[in-house]
Amino acid sequence: MSHNTFGHLFRVTTFGESHGAGIGCVVDGCPPRLALEAADIQAELDRRRPGTSRFTTQRQEPDTARILSGVMTDDATGRQVTTGTPIAVFIDNVDQRSKDYGEIRDKYRPGHADYVYDAKYGIRDYRGGGRSSARETAARVAAGAIARKVIPGVTIRAALVKMGKLAIDRRNWDWDQIGKNPFFCPDAEAVGRFVHYLDAVRRAGSSVGAVLEVVAEGVPPGWGAPIYGKLDAELASALMSINAVKGVEIGDGFGAAELMGEENADEMRAGNDGRPRFLSNHAGGILGGLATGQPIVARFAVKPTSSILTPRKTVDRAMEETEIVTKGRHDPCVGIRAVPIAEAMVACVLADAFLRHRGQVG
Amino acid sequence: MSHNTFGHLFRVTTFGESHGAGIGCVVDGCPPRLALEAADIQAELDRRRPGTSRFTTQRQEPDTARILSGVMTDDATGRQVTTGTPIAVFIDNVDQRSKDYGEIRDKYRPGHADYVYDAKYGIRDYRGGGRSSARETAARVAAGAIARKVIPGVTIRAALVKMGKLAIDRRNWDWDQIGKNPFFCPDAEAVGRFVHYLDAVRRAGSSVGAVLEVVAEGVPPGWGAPIYGKLDAELASALMSINAVKGVEIGDGFGAAELMGEENADEMRAGNDGRPRFLSNHAGGILGGLATGQPIVARFAVKPTSSILTPRKTVDRAMEETEIVTKGRHDPCVGIRAVPIAEAMVACVLADAFLRHRGQVG
Amino acid sequence: MSHNTFGHLFRVTTFGESHGAGIGCVVDGCPPRLALEAADIQAELDRRRPGTSRFTTQRQEPDTARILSGVMTDDATGRQVTTGTPIAVFIDNVDQRSKDYGEIRDKYRPGHADYVYDAKYGIRDYRGGGRSSARETAARVAAGAIARKVIPGVTIRAALVKMGKLAIDRRNWDWDQIGKNPFFCPDAEAVGRFVHYLDAVRRAGSSVGAVLEVVAEGVPPGWGAPIYGKLDAELASALMSINAVKGVEIGDGFGAAELMGEENADEMRAGNDGRPRFLSNHAGGILGGLATGQPIVARFAVKPTSSILTPRKTVDRAMEETEIVTKGRHDPCVGIRAVPIAEAMVACVLADAFLRHRGQVG
Amino acid sequence: MSHNTFGHLFRVTTFGESHGAGIGCVVDGCPPRLALEAADIQAELDRRRPGTSRFTTQRQEPDTARILSGVMTDDATGRQVTTGTPIAVFIDNVDQRSKDYGEIRDKYRPGHADYVYDAKYGIRDYRGGGRSSARETAARVAAGAIARKVIPGVTIRAALVKMGKLAIDRRNWDWDQIGKNPFFCPDAEAVGRFVHYLDAVRRAGSSVGAVLEVVAEGVPPGWGAPIYGKLDAELASALMSINAVKGVEIGDGFGAAELMGEENADEMRAGNDGRPRFLSNHAGGILGGLATGQPIVARFAVKPTSSILTPRKTVDRAMEETEIVTKGRHDPCVGIRAVPIAEAMVACVLADAFLRHRGQVG
Repeated sequence: MSHNTFGHLFRVTTFGESHGAGIGCVVDGCPPRLALEAADIQAELDRRRPGTSRFTTQRQEPDTARILSGVMTDDATGRQVTTGTPIAVFIDNVDQRSKDYGEIRDKYRPGHADYVYDAKYGIRDYRGGGRSSARETAARVAAGAIARKVIPGVTIRAALVKMGKLAIDRRNWDWDQIGKNPFFCPDAEAVGRFVHYLDAVRRAGSSVGAVLEVVAEGVPPGWGAPIYGKLDAELASALMSINAVKGVEIGDGFGAAELMGEENADEMRAGNDGRPRFLSNHAGGILGGLATGQPIVARFAVKPTSSILTPRKTVDRAMEETEIVTKGRHDPCVGIRAVPIAEAMVACVLADAFLRHRGQVG
Repeated sequence: MSHNTFGHLFRVTTFGESHGAGIGCVVDGCPPRLALEAADIQAELDRRRPGTSRFTTQRQEPDTARILSGVMTDDATGRQVTTGTPIAVFIDNVDQRSKDYGEIRDKYRPGHADYVYDAKYGIRDYRGGGRSSARETAARVAAGAIARKVIPGVTIRAALVKMGKLAIDRRNWDWDQIGKNPFFCPDAEAVGRFVHYLDAVRRAGSSVGAVLEVVAEGVPPGWGAPIYGKLDAELASALMSINAVKGVEIGDGFGAAELMGEENADEMRAGNDGRPRFLSNHAGGILGGLATGQPIVARFAVKPTSSILTPRKTVDRAMEETEIVTKGRHDPCVGIRAVPIAEAMVACVLADAFLRHRGQVG
Repeated sequence: MSHNTFGHLFRVTTFGESHGAGIGCVVDGCPPRLALEAADIQAELDRRRPGTSRFTTQRQEPDTARILSGVMTDDATGRQVTTGTPIAVFIDNVDQRSKDYGEIRDKYRPGHADYVYDAKYGIRDYRGGGRSSARETAARVAAGAIARKVIPGVTIRAALVKMGKLAIDRRNWDWDQIGKNPFFCPDAEAVGRFVHYLDAVRRAGSSVGAVLEVVAEGVPPGWGAPIYGKLDAELASALMSINAVKGVEIGDGFGAAELMGEENADEMRAGNDGRPRFLSNHAGGILGGLATGQPIVARFAVKPTSSILTPRKTVDRAMEETEIVTKGRHDPCVGIRAVPIAEAMVACVLADAFLRHRGQVG
Repeated sequence: MSHNTFGHLFRVTTFGESHGAGIGCVVDGCPPRLALEAADIQAELDRRRPGTSRFTTQRQEPDTARILSGVMTDDATGRQVTTGTPIAVFIDNVDQRSKDYGEIRDKYRPGHADYVYDAKYGIRDYRGGGRSSARETAARVAAGAIARKVIPGVTIRAALVKMGKLAIDRRNWDWDQIGKNPFFCPDAEAVGRFVHYLDAVRRAGSSVGAVLEVVAEGVPPGWGAPIYGKLDAELASALMSINAVKGVEIGDGFGAAELMGEENADEMRAGNDGRPRFLSNHAGGILGGLATGQPIVARFAVKPTSSILTPRKTVDRAMEETEIVTKGRHDPCVGIRAVPIAEAMVACVLADAFLRHRGQVG
């Protein structure tokens, strides 16, 4: 992962700012002859799209994806397929409302990247956060939709498991619930509590953090690569690169630090498929940087949106002390919309791991 | 980070197995004319060296580093300096005792990478874990000693803050204590508890996990790179790539998920040095993937050593069910020796970030 | 250079096919605060644009470049500048005339990439050559226009020095002539011969090869990087990657193989500027992979366009023997339009070399 | 290719200087379970080894390769095989004779990298040319021996086809002659002329350039990668990175510039193996950056050794004008020993192309 590109054989480069012409990605290295329609990408974008409930930003972006290159109609089947050449996807920005952001041109919003962009580049696209806006993640979701095509046997799903201090009850976990509430929450009983809580947060003009969990099933043993291309290292990098993420853990994660050796290491019995059957999954499906064949389980923490209505102490570009209230249209819990983004990042990491694995060991 | 190389401009490639000829690294892209002696590397290696207390493996490795290339004596000063060409460092393996590992040739140790290496490569260097052994980290420590030379204004220190369920009292934090106890523990009062606890663990033939914290001070604002080369993403990848690490967090980390927006975002006042003075550091010194100028704070979780004396259920290469007791000489808390390793990884990430920053913005 | 991306710190990714929506590039790693207008890019594209004389393809493409990201108006100066974030440029395809290419859907054109794309990918965008079309080079020219901004002190110019067996007279070399004839030819006296010759080639429905020379002046000593990132190796890769290029040489190139040691090595005297003054430039401005401070001189050979009106023996996708005549609108000497493309590639290589040099040595 | 590493999935990093401890390489990404003994590497090194005839440098280096990592004995077969982990190879320097090079500490040798290393790094390992010495190529040859194992169906052979102005007669080409004369010359009749000529050059204390040709047979159609990872671009980069190389061409190369379209494009007939049978090979086995299945043919030009006994004008580090005579033990035609080096580079490029191809398209 480097600057605006990630991946090695399945490589994704993104571009675009919150209030420029649009957001896009170029996916290079995708295998050929995979069926791919704009609708495949659109389906994932619609899951991330803002303005779908009162719990996400009211910015209205249709987020319509166009595929600019890398596909053609296969005359034999009539289906649109990838050709092995770079696939560019572009999403126009529509509802920019630049006027909302006039005040932040000169003031640095606490918790945002305003100051550091100025410190690094000596210039900053202040319109909606510019390149540092979470709007960039739309391009990741588009890339992730393509990545899923590369690894059809793998199922990748994410869920919100904690909002502020409210956690779900894991015994109620039901993946089918994910699409049935505005929080991507797998615990139907927790939804009511979340609605009540987040309404209060929203009315207070505040925001709250969240913890998400992403699970990839169907990854064969051996994907990944020691020593610095470890699958868990790549997942950590990919998830940490999502806006507002402050922590990542695999399997038992920080909980593993509290365990004894005999509690943590997953015992094995003979499986029916020539592989070991693990008796537990504290490892989260990864050992030594390589997939074990068990579900890969990662969790990550999202900080609360820094754009809130409470006045905050800050400085301006002239380093004069001032206060700021971040108006505009913001997510009271930005973690919610991180669900499809996390799935996309994991899909990209796994697609890349698969191609590299196939490259080295056939 | 890819396979056995990490970094972009400051690039580290490591090689070697636990029971082969030795362990080494090649550091490419190091700036020229930096004073560098083997003793600089040795000092760091000695901090990681096994066998220095009863709380680490009793394997006796002198871990003597030789610099094979990339340095010469500067005739003007008489000092040995880097030349800008690749610096290779080699550390001979001495005390291998391969006979200890006969049993694990055919059986897969739970919690280790034995099975997945076989699944990926169809062959596995079973001698002491081969390439997946934590012995590889000696090469990282050597590279880190070189990286520190690249960023002389930056101080990087790590500490053990939790062992199993025992945490330090952060009010007692004193960096000077780090070198005065066998745990790299900054809380002198906690040391007695840790001794008592780890002795019991060791005598039980068991092991325990740990949490470590690493702090980098003196990093100027702007180092790092959006979007996929974010400084926190690179740190997460680097720390997660260390053996047995299962979680990484920056600043408040998972704690940030429980905060409200006004609790989390760090307010700013005007500083004396033309930079903002932050009123808190929930962000851990990184916003939008770029350094803020505050101390960079990362924590990571290390699982308990999987090599323990309790018999464990497992399978062998023929997928027959069996049991295994991992004899040999192991760390009861492998997290302890991760302290110099984590410092080294952070030093490498920051050296690379510095060079890339200088490359792009001068 | 890898797949569809080249460069390390100044990284260019291109996408798009001859008859798709358009052609584009993403330039990542560009320094901030460089003045950049679409017009800067357009000026270079216009030099490459088809249909400007009877000696280039009659395909009419306005090749209008739009900058989609990475720039903003600097409020202080009112000028549009780079922000340090990725700069995406897109050029719509307008005059595609897909019907011209019906026959080549199933037949493999000799000298083209038709067969090998099918062999590799099992599918091929046959419309105008798809991704393998020289139309892709429009994106390179756009990237090159940006690269020139990164290295303002460097002048990069190319010229056609040979068409078929007709060479220019180097004693007549005048850079001012380049823009005054349809061949980018620096020898005014040769132009008449070239016109006469190429008209005959064109009328015969045939095509002819060419040799071009590109010269970069103002490159300071030390840019480049041993051992595998040598400046000449990167130039060779960049120029060889241009469609139809079959050979690259630096300085005396293949002529150097005929020289004796005392004829070839460039002697030095003391210069006025603290640098050596070389008494000759057989080396073409590069020694040991690093710039010497002399003009960098590269030449490259372009094969004749393979699209000609003479019937040619070939096979079709079913591996049946057949003949093909490549109709459509083609350049009788594709080398001519390689002039701005070569300049662009050299500009990108040098911009990248500059940033990496600054990264490593300050 | 970047600094001291080249390749993407089959990655080679080299280190070491002419007069340091030794020369080495780390090969990362090699597939597992390939039989590999030190003797396999030694056989290639012996072909490059200096001091084997009066036509190469009299420096006596046994060039004994040790494999430091990445292999183990396969218990099933008793053979030593690769494990998929990085393979480090080290070659001790033995006959350094540093005293020979005292004079060049302060003076810049014309045609060498002395000045540019100083200009770039502000320091220079003057002992035998340091890192810029062709001694580094021993590590490439070692890596190439490993690369050959990755692509067992491919035969890679190089030959010297021109020495100064003396060319071989291609009608006499016989690969069996390569090992039977000190020039790697495929034309037995030319050997006598070369002996006579090079003896004269050597006695005169001078040197002469050469042209070499390398041919890879058995490369399947489709290896390589558009657009910037073209197989010919990678070969150009790899060959140009060899010391003293000033030009590279593929197939007809610069000769192609003199051809008409109908002369150049290789016609096709149906082959017996489901592939086209080409009626000629002007393309040198590569179209659009991808292998056609025909033999891959590259030629490259090597300049004459710059180390000669004739006094040459130069400057010293203080930029004072002076003269220099390069004593020491030098090759009168450094091109001769480039034969095994070129084969090694081509082997590495093809091994990498194979793994990447397999990664993307299976």
